[in-house]
Amino acid sequence: MADLKIYRASTTAPVNIAVIKYWGKRDPALNLPTNSSLSVTLSQSDLRTHTTASCSPAFDHPDTLLLNNAPQSLSTPRSLACLRSLRALRSGLEDADPSLPKLSTLPLRLASANNFPTAAGLASSAAGFAALVRAIADLYALRQSPTELSLIARQGSGSACRSLLGGYVAWDHGTRADGLDSRARLVAPKAHWPDMRALILVVSAAKKGVSSTAGMQTTVQTSSLFQTRAKEVVPKRMAEMEHAILSKDFETFAKVTMRESNSFHATCLDTDPPIFYLNDVSRAAIKAVEETNDKAGRTIAAYTFDAGPNAVIYYQKADEDAVLKTFLPILRQKEGWGETDTKIDDPGPASPQVVEALEAGVSRVILTSVGEGPISVQEHLIDDEGKPVIT
Amino acid sequence: MADLKIYRASTTAPVNIAVIKYWGKRDPALNLPTNSSLSVTLSQSDLRTHTTASCSPAFDHPDTLLLNNAPQSLSTPRSLACLRSLRALRSGLEDADPSLPKLSTLPLRLASANNFPTAAGLASSAAGFAALVRAIADLYALRQSPTELSLIARQGSGSACRSLLGGYVAWDHGTRADGLDSRARLVAPKAHWPDMRALILVVSAAKKGVSSTAGMQTTVQTSSLFQTRAKEVVPKRMAEMEHAILSKDFETFAKVTMRESNSFHATCLDTDPPIFYLNDVSRAAIKAVEETNDKAGRTIAAYTFDAGPNAVIYYQKADEDAVLKTFLPILRQKEGWGETDTKIDDPGPASPQVVEALEAGVSRVILTSVGEGPISVQEHLIDDEGKPVIT
Repeated sequence: MADLKIYRASTTAPVNIAVIKYWGKRDPALNLPTNSSLSVTLSQSDLRTHTTASCSPAFDHPDTLLLNNAPQSLSTPRSLACLRSLRALRSGLEDADPSLPKLSTLPLRLASANNFPTAAGLASSAAGFAALVRAIADLYALRQSPTELSLIARQGSGSACRSLLGGYVAWDHGTRADGLDSRARLVAPKAHWPDMRALILVVSAAKKGVSSTAGMQTTVQTSSLFQTRAKEVVPKRMAEMEHAILSKDFETFAKVTMRESNSFHATCLDTDPPIFYLNDVSRAAIKAVEETNDKAGRTIAAYTFDAGPNAVIYYQKADEDAVLKTFLPILRQKEGWGETDTKIDDPGPASPQVVEALEAGVSRVILTSVGEGPISVQEHLIDDEGKPVIT
Repeated sequence: MADLKIYRASTTAPVNIAVIKYWGKRDPALNLPTNSSLSVTLSQSDLRTHTTASCSPAFDHPDTLLLNNAPQSLSTPRSLACLRSLRALRSGLEDADPSLPKLSTLPLRLASANNFPTAAGLASSAAGFAALVRAIADLYALRQSPTELSLIARQGSGSACRSLLGGYVAWDHGTRADGLDSRARLVAPKAHWPDMRALILVVSAAKKGVSSTAGMQTTVQTSSLFQTRAKEVVPKRMAEMEHAILSKDFETFAKVTMRESNSFHATCLDTDPPIFYLNDVSRAAIKAVEETNDKAGRTIAAYTFDAGPNAVIYYQKADEDAVLKTFLPILRQKEGWGETDTKIDDPGPASPQVVEALEAGVSRVILTSVGEGPISVQEHLIDDEGKPVIT
C-alpha cells in the first residue's frame, strides 16, 4: 500500500501598505515594476491571511484552494507561476537527496482565511500570495531566504513580495529582463522603529473602481506625467524614505508618504480615461490629517491611499492621543477601536465639513501598528485527514 | 466755469473657458504664465459682464468701481496696473493732439454688472477685467487692437486677456521678461466653427476652495510633475488643439480638452498640500460624458473643469440631442434650460450612481455656445449725471 500520509504546513502573512507606491509594470507577465516601492508591514493581530498548504498521495489532482471556505481558481497564470516555481525548488531538493518524499509531484490542497473583510479593499492579495508562497515553501522545507522567495510571490501579486518580510520593506524594481533582481529587501526590522502606528479608515465605497492591474497599465500607456514620476520623482523619494526610516525621522517619513500618495493618484487622474480612487470621504480624511498637523504645530500624522478610497494614517505611538483626538470623537460609534485607552477631553480640530463627511462615509476603523513578517503556526486549516476546517 | 461734462463708454465682455489650461506663473507681478493656454469664448447672451466707464471733472478722486451695485476696491496692484497702463495710452494721445480733452487726468467711475451669479465660480474675473479694459479703452478712444489691449487685461487677471477676442483664442506664454509677447491671439473666429455648444453644470459647492492665484503658485513651487506638464505636455497639446480647431476636428478637440483638464487637476493633486477642485459631483459629470460617448460610439462630448467643481461640457450642435439625452432627463428640474426644444424619448445612458450624484449636486445649468468678443453698447450703468444705475 502506498504512502497516504498527509503533509501540512501553516503560516500567517501580513498586509503591507506602501509609502512609496507601486504603479506600473515594465513587464506585465513577470510583474516587474517601472519603479521601486517601499512599505510598512502591518501587525498580523489585526490584518493577516492564515494559510495551510498540504499535499498527499491520497489527494486527487488538480491542486485546489479554499479562501474563507470558498473554492478559488489556481489555474490563473499568476498562481500557476508561483506553484511551478515552488515545485521546481522542491524538485531540486528531491533530486539532491533521494531519501526525501517526492512532494513536488503530489497534488496540493490549500486553505486560507483572512481575519478582515476581504471586500474592504485592504491589499488582501498581497497577504494572500505571501501566505501561499510561505506555506508551500515551509511544506516543501525550502531553504530560500524571504528575499529569494519574494521573487516567487512577486509573480503572484506584485506587492505580495513585500509581505514576506516584516518591518520596513523595499521592493527594488531591478533592471534584469528575467526579473531576478526585482525583489523585496529589508530596509529595517520592526524592532528598529516599533512605535509606528496605523489608523485605517475603511470607507464604504459603493463598488470597487478600476482594478489596479488594469488601471496601472492604462496609466503607463496614456499618462503624459507618468514617466516623470517613475524615472525622476520616485527614485529620489526612495532614497529620502530609506534615510528617514533609518534615522526614525517621522517628519520626513510623513511628508514623503503624503506627497507620494498624491503623486500616485495624480498619475491616475492623468490617465485616459481618468482613474479616480479618492472620493469626497478620502478628501475629508486628508483634510482631517492636515488639521491634526496644523493643530499640533508639527507633522505628527501622514495619510496614504492605495487603489481605493480607504485612508491609512501613520503616526508614532507618542502622538497617539493627539492623532486620535481628531478621529475618535467623530468615529467613536464605528467598529474597530478595540481597547483604545486614549482619553479625549475636548473635541479635536476637525472642521464641521470634515466631521460630517467622515461620520457618513467611514464604515469601520482598524487600529494597528508595524508588524512582523510571516509566522509559522501549528493551527491548520486542513485537518489530519486532509479535510478543510471550516473557519 | 470748468467743463463738467461726463464722458461715458459701455461694453459687454464674455466669459471664456479654457481647453488648454493656464496654471502657473513665471512672473506673478506681471501675470506671465509658465505655459500657453487656449479657450473658447462663450456667448454673451448667457454669460457676460456689462461695464460702463465714465470720467468727469465733476467727479471726486479716487477712482471708484461698483460691481452689481456694491463698491469694489480699485487699489489692488492688479487694478492699479490696468488703470495706469490705460491712462498712459490716453496720455500719449493727448500729448499728440492737444485739442483732445485731458481724460487721463480725470477720476474714473466704473460700474459693472454680471448677468450670471458671481459666486458660481464661472470665470467672472476674466469677463470683469476684459470689460473694464475694453470700456476704458473705448472711453479713451484708444486705437490699440484687442491683442494689444490683452497685454493690459492680462495684468488684471491672466485669463482676462483671452476675453478680449471672440471665438477660439490662444494666450501665448511669451518669453520676454517684460511680458510684451505674452498676449491673446485669435486662433479662429466664431464664424469659422459656430456650431460649438457648451453645457455648464453649476455644482453647489459648500465653499470655494483654494484661490487659483494662491493655488497655482503652490503648484509651481511644490509639484514634482508640474514642470513636465508646462514644458513638454502643454506645448504639444497647444499645437494639436490649434490644428483641431482649424480643421474643425471635434474628436481631437474633445480628447485633448479632456486630457488637458485631467492633467491640470493632476498637478493640483500633486501639489503640497494637495489642491482638490473636483468633487464627487464632478466625477459623476465625467462619468456621464464617458457614458454619453460610449453610447454614441464616438466622442461627441468633452468635459473640462476650471479651478472649481463646475463641469463645462463642449459638443457640436449636430449632436445636441444625443448629449442632452444624458443630462436633460436627470436635471430637467434645474434652472437654466431656456427654450431647449430637444425631445427626449427614452432615458439616457447615465448609470444610477451618476444620476443620483448629478441630481443631488447640480444646482443649475447654463446652455450656451461659442460667442463673440466684447461688444460696445449704448446702455450705460452710469447715467448722464454720473450716478450709478441700479441693476
